[in-house]
Amino acid sequence: MPKASVCTIGDEILIGQIVDTNSSHISRALNSLGIRVGKMVSIADDATQINDCLEAELKDNDIVVCTGGLGPTKDDITKETLARLSGAKGWVENLTQKEIIKNLLSSRGIDILDINLRQALVPDSCDVIPNRLGTAPVMVFRFPAERFGHPAVLYSLPGVPFEALGALPDVLEDIRTHFGLGAIVHRTLMTYGIAESALAKLIEPWETSLPADMHLAYLPNPMTGVRLRLSVYDADDSAPERIMAQFGLLRPILGDYIYATEDTSLEAVIGALLRGSGKTLSCAESCTGGMVSHLLTTVSGSSEYFLGSVVSYDPSVKTKVLGVDPGTIGKDGIVSSAVAAEMARGARALTGSTYSVSTTGWADAYGDENEPAGTVWIGVDGPLGTCTKKYNFRNDRKRNIERFAASALNELRKYILEDKTL
Amino acid sequence: MPKASVCTIGDEILIGQIVDTNSSHISRALNSLGIRVGKMVSIADDATQINDCLEAELKDNDIVVCTGGLGPTKDDITKETLARLSGAKGWVENLTQKEIIKNLLSSRGIDILDINLRQALVPDSCDVIPNRLGTAPVMVFRFPAERFGHPAVLYSLPGVPFEALGALPDVLEDIRTHFGLGAIVHRTLMTYGIAESALAKLIEPWETSLPADMHLAYLPNPMTGVRLRLSVYDADDSAPERIMAQFGLLRPILGDYIYATEDTSLEAVIGALLRGSGKTLSCAESCTGGMVSHLLTTVSGSSEYFLGSVVSYDPSVKTKVLGVDPGTIGKDGIVSSAVAAEMARGARALTGSTYSVSTTGWADAYGDENEPAGTVWIGVDGPLGTCTKKYNFRNDRKRNIERFAASALNELRKYILEDKTL
Repeated sequence: MPKASVCTIGDEILIGQIVDTNSSHISRALNSLGIRVGKMVSIADDATQINDCLEAELKDNDIVVCTGGLGPTKDDITKETLARLSGAKGWVENLTQKEIIKNLLSSRGIDILDINLRQALVPDSCDVIPNRLGTAPVMVFRFPAERFGHPAVLYSLPGVPFEALGALPDVLEDIRTHFGLGAIVHRTLMTYGIAESALAKLIEPWETSLPADMHLAYLPNPMTGVRLRLSVYDADDSAPERIMAQFGLLRPILGDYIYATEDTSLEAVIGALLRGSGKTLSCAESCTGGMVSHLLTTVSGSSEYFLGSVVSYDPSVKTKVLGVDPGTIGKDGIVSSAVAAEMARGARALTGSTYSVSTTGWADAYGDENEPAGTVWIGVDGPLGTCTKKYNFRNDRKRNIERFAASALNELRKYILEDKTL
Repeated sequence: MPKASVCTIGDEILIGQIVDTNSSHISRALNSLGIRVGKMVSIADDATQINDCLEAELKDNDIVVCTGGLGPTKDDITKETLARLSGAKGWVENLTQKEIIKNLLSSRGIDILDINLRQALVPDSCDVIPNRLGTAPVMVFRFPAERFGHPAVLYSLPGVPFEALGALPDVLEDIRTHFGLGAIVHRTLMTYGIAESALAKLIEPWETSLPADMHLAYLPNPMTGVRLRLSVYDADDSAPERIMAQFGLLRPILGDYIYATEDTSLEAVIGALLRGSGKTLSCAESCTGGMVSHLLTTVSGSSEYFLGSVVSYDPSVKTKVLGVDPGTIGKDGIVSSAVAAEMARGARALTGSTYSVSTTGWADAYGDENEPAGTVWIGVDGPLGTCTKKYNFRNDRKRNIERFAASALNELRKYILEDKTL
């Protein structure tokens, strides 16, 4: 299995000005070809560091993919450094890239300057993959075995994320034709509502008896719950099915903690449950301030089943718009099972939706004598009647709101599932 | 100036499943202390690689900050590897962290298991900085000069981003007390509503005449607009004032594109305008699906001025709840100035708020004969009457929704400012 390293070049990453997303995209793409990425490195726009780092990575790896440092301005020195590293004897103009540069700039109404056209000049030691989305082409340096002890290939891609991503398919095709590749297969099982440590304890016997070639990873995330990822390296065609069979063994253990056996989200799963069913949905949000609705409407096509929401941040909106009884608020408190229930029923009555979900809680420093900060009451209303449930989290405001919203989606998901089953 | 390296440990980063944001945050924080980060590295959950990589980084740097690999499950092996690397003779239980673990888990109603409590066990070769937001403490390994040729410190932080970020101030304080540090001063000016290239052209004369020790960076972001950051390295006490004087020169050039001279957000600026004013706010959202309300309520204390919203995703909610005239929808179309105006007026009438903001648009593939996908009409209603404005963006659904929401906040901000001035 070829080994790869991904390098990003640029001061803007090292000073924390931008988050490097190229490495993640490139790694995912390389993995999909069966190439294991053993390391990612970010370095500065410094000739010595670029040279030393790339030499070291080429010694350790079959493939090195680097991005960045190819701009037309003086601070970008990667191309000159790669020319020296690869022992180039001169520079050649790539005519395809030159045409692309002219077309790109003239279509944007930008004057074509010498520094733009110089982008088409490349060392004579490399092959070129044209970059149709920008001015700097991809350079491919192929090193013979005597240089680093094994044949090695260095791909130099532009740093602008959409250009790097755009060039990736051609880069992958080049890699595919030059290496005999074993596949890596990953599959992901999504759980919500169980902590990582409790999950680990629950599935320990299952984990211990996994086949030797299957690797398990736990990926906790407040919005999606804990993802369980099984990976098989050097996989054959049976790997996806073998992984899914292992996931199948988890069903009786984890029950409705499992919400999907692919990498997805609670809001997408709810969308899949409702789409085409004729059933509709509304929300009555308080402490989540619109986040539940926002998440539901990030799903393309959500207008088919999502009717709308009332964000009743102020008690007056709860009573006036949702019809919550002021007496209930006075008796049970604004963060209570009764208010969550009346909110959910109010949203359903107002919109005529099949289901509704509500949230009322304290996201930060407030809280009252009944319920401390971090408490949320979630209500779900629908054909099965009204359910409410309380959760307590101890995070900061932003994180509490996220957990409240994700928990509300999960309660809604379980309610819809139950309604479908009955 | 001390040199630092930032390392992230975890297979999930190397296979591209998650984007590493910790490195960026940590680098920015180290830079703010005057520490130059020369390299970032991401490696796998592999004992040999962790050991070799950290040894190499400790040889090259004064400070190494690593995150990740500290979870309670079997795939996390960083702690054992660090124990060996640092020559630990045994394990000690950190009682502060043990208490935190117990409190965290019991407040969430989670059973406390042995694998949770084991998180409080650390090698006897490290100092501990407690992690108040999670179970794995920060470990600080201080290596004498004879080990790597110079004194070196290794900080091992949890990988969960909000825990890593939460521990960062204590880590910085530890670094500050152990190194003599030259200051870097950064200040940020926030703009919204102008593209990076147009902004650059507008302020070119100002940029060219900046003092030699001031460095300008453009940081575009769809939610906050383009941030302009001025930095002074090896700064003295006058640097903040000198930077702010330069920002002052931009006011007559940029006008109300500028919304703050500190790193903040549109929703926080709106909060600052409304807090203590007795004025209140509501929203009527369609295409933004709750995101405007969600952003407004991420601001702590927003309940003082934010009354609530109606997310009228379905036309029936626009007419029934917000009182939009079906005739207007029929005549002008659902994405129109008239509907945006009636929605904003409807939200204000329903909630009694001083101001209201509305959105109606096509976030993705739909669009109609009048308005293509990516179009949003924004309405603002208040004491000055109703204003509407149209924007068109050409992004994917998620990005369009973000731009719609940020543009709505910006229109609201400008309206409130105008109302305050008049």
